[in-house]
Amino acid sequence: MDATSSSETPQDTVYEEIESFFDSAPPLKDGADISRKLNEFIARDSHSTGKLVSDGGGGATRVVCVTSGGTTVPLEKRCVRYIDNFSSGHRGAASTEYFLKAGYSVIFLYRRGTFQPFCRSLPEDPLLECFEVSKELNVQARQSHSEAVKRAIGEHCAVWIAIDQGHLLKLPFTTIFEYLQILQLIAMSMKNLGKCAMFCLAAAVSDFYVPWKSMVEHKIQSASGPLDMRLVQVPKMLSVLRKDWVPMAFCISFKLETDSKILLEKAEMALKKYKMHLVVANELETRKEVVVVVTSSEKISVHRDKNEANADIESPLIKLLVEKHSSYIEGPDF
Amino acid sequence: MDATSSSETPQDTVYEEIESFFDSAPPLKDGADISRKLNEFIARDSHSTGKLVSDGGGGATRVVCVTSGGTTVPLEKRCVRYIDNFSSGHRGAASTEYFLKAGYSVIFLYRRGTFQPFCRSLPEDPLLECFEVSKELNVQARQSHSEAVKRAIGEHCAVWIAIDQGHLLKLPFTTIFEYLQILQLIAMSMKNLGKCAMFCLAAAVSDFYVPWKSMVEHKIQSASGPLDMRLVQVPKMLSVLRKDWVPMAFCISFKLETDSKILLEKAEMALKKYKMHLVVANELETRKEVVVVVTSSEKISVHRDKNEANADIESPLIKLLVEKHSSYIEGPDF
Repeated sequence: MDATSSSETPQDTVYEEIESFFDSAPPLKDGADISRKLNEFIARDSHSTGKLVSDGGGGATRVVCVTSGGTTVPLEKRCVRYIDNFSSGHRGAASTEYFLKAGYSVIFLYRRGTFQPFCRSLPEDPLLECFEVSKELNVQARQSHSEAVKRAIGEHCAVWIAIDQGHLLKLPFTTIFEYLQILQLIAMSMKNLGKCAMFCLAAAVSDFYVPWKSMVEHKIQSASGPLDMRLVQVPKMLSVLRKDWVPMAFCISFKLETDSKILLEKAEMALKKYKMHLVVANELETRKEVVVVVTSSEKISVHRDKNEANADIESPLIKLLVEKHSSYIEGPDF
Repeated sequence: MDATSSSETPQDTVYEEIESFFDSAPPLKDGADISRKLNEFIARDSHSTGKLVSDGGGGATRVVCVTSGGTTVPLEKRCVRYIDNFSSGHRGAASTEYFLKAGYSVIFLYRRGTFQPFCRSLPEDPLLECFEVSKELNVQARQSHSEAVKRAIGEHCAVWIAIDQGHLLKLPFTTIFEYLQILQLIAMSMKNLGKCAMFCLAAAVSDFYVPWKSMVEHKIQSASGPLDMRLVQVPKMLSVLRKDWVPMAFCISFKLETDSKILLEKAEMALKKYKMHLVVANELETRKEVVVVVTSSEKISVHRDKNEANADIESPLIKLLVEKHSSYIEGPDF
């Protein structure tokens, strides 16, 4: 970790951009409350489980921060219009489940309204339509939906157990400002975990934003003629997360493209530019069937198990990520 | 209805813009299916209820099209990023309930994922958390949530009854393209209802869009430097709806502003420019407490009944709109 070794990025410019981004951001609501929750979560986790995690790697508690869903970019201060990134949050929610099963504690930083861990098996009908009121005025599941509802409620109990036992902390965001502000708080709280910390950055983060200070106060008026908008690049927070915020943590980012031709090239670029340990490359249309895990030395295709009904691609993917994390923990400090 | 009387808008330009908008739009999925549903709905409604509607006005079946929620503007063809308009759809969902109670048949054109009629009284907790599996392996509502869940399921039955009896047709949209394409189909199907048709346009429609033909195919790349975007104005479909699509229908639009200073002025402008019969003026922060109904001859403030718990502002608002529609039906044809 050498702060002066990076020759390809003008590092000073990145720091300036980041300072300007945070300076211009609206203050984070409940920032103090989020910090308190994070510190309690990390302390409780280290305290209650001690050096307990089981699967081979170093023996200390492992904590992963999974980010999930898309960020919004407000176009007005009193926000009526905003730019949004499409993301259901399915990958982040599923990954959280498999990390918990692998013995990790998980900080789940998610976009409000997206998929939640252990809530993915809900029937497609609106939940309310699965129930009826019986003649005795009791609420009961409709015969046709009974099994699906039972399974969903059973799975959902897993969330409460994980939260109760201090293995899961859920933190919601909406805007790009909230996302990066909370991510920084999480990184600060995880810094001392050293190599046992992992960041699995699956959220779809906006590339461009309107700086809060230059944003109009009121709704943009639709006068005659076209609307020209200038959006500024969101500073590349990944490189600072990796280098300064959590220099020892195992860092994974995701690259989503719609054009398969440029996908692997972009993934390799991200690996080098932000010094990620690993980049997961997804193509929009096939992302639930196959992904490519890109490291500095290899490219591994991970496929969903087609022989098993309802199998998730996240099952083999998280297994591989956990193995890579173990090797990293066991490997030389540098 | 004089097609040549409008002197303030260059009408030819509007027609050209509209033609260009529809020409450049991606083809509507299930367009034929939607048309069939609409025709069945209108036919069934006229047939089954005949000239039956009760409350004073003209005696014929009244049908209202309520639009609800915000439209999106895709920024890429294989859409990852889009501009969205904030709107929960609460006003449209509540209005639909009160129109049904007033004896109207309702075509509810709503943004996917927004509030639905008769589903507004759900507990704030995620619905799944309201249930548990008993020792006998039956699904039951938790004691603490039992009453709320019972009320919600009871209310929800009202939706099924309304749909079954042919009084409610729900049609979903996401993009600005889908919204305007379906709105045109609805207008075509309602044209023959004459003055008994009402349009209650509560959706938050985008003012600007990227024409489909000039849109990039793939995800916009975040190269260095800022992103400049040029958005084109969405053609003012309101004036064509009013003048050509349904010249006899009673038309209501909504004006939402965050700046109270310009709100009434903008509402009056919309009334004149698009020849609406009535404009409902809302301010973002107070819209659940008070709105102003603007007509060519008066401005009426409508307040939520504060003496009644859980009272909606839509209760007195829809009552007033129904009265105005009755007067319109009874008034002179011109």
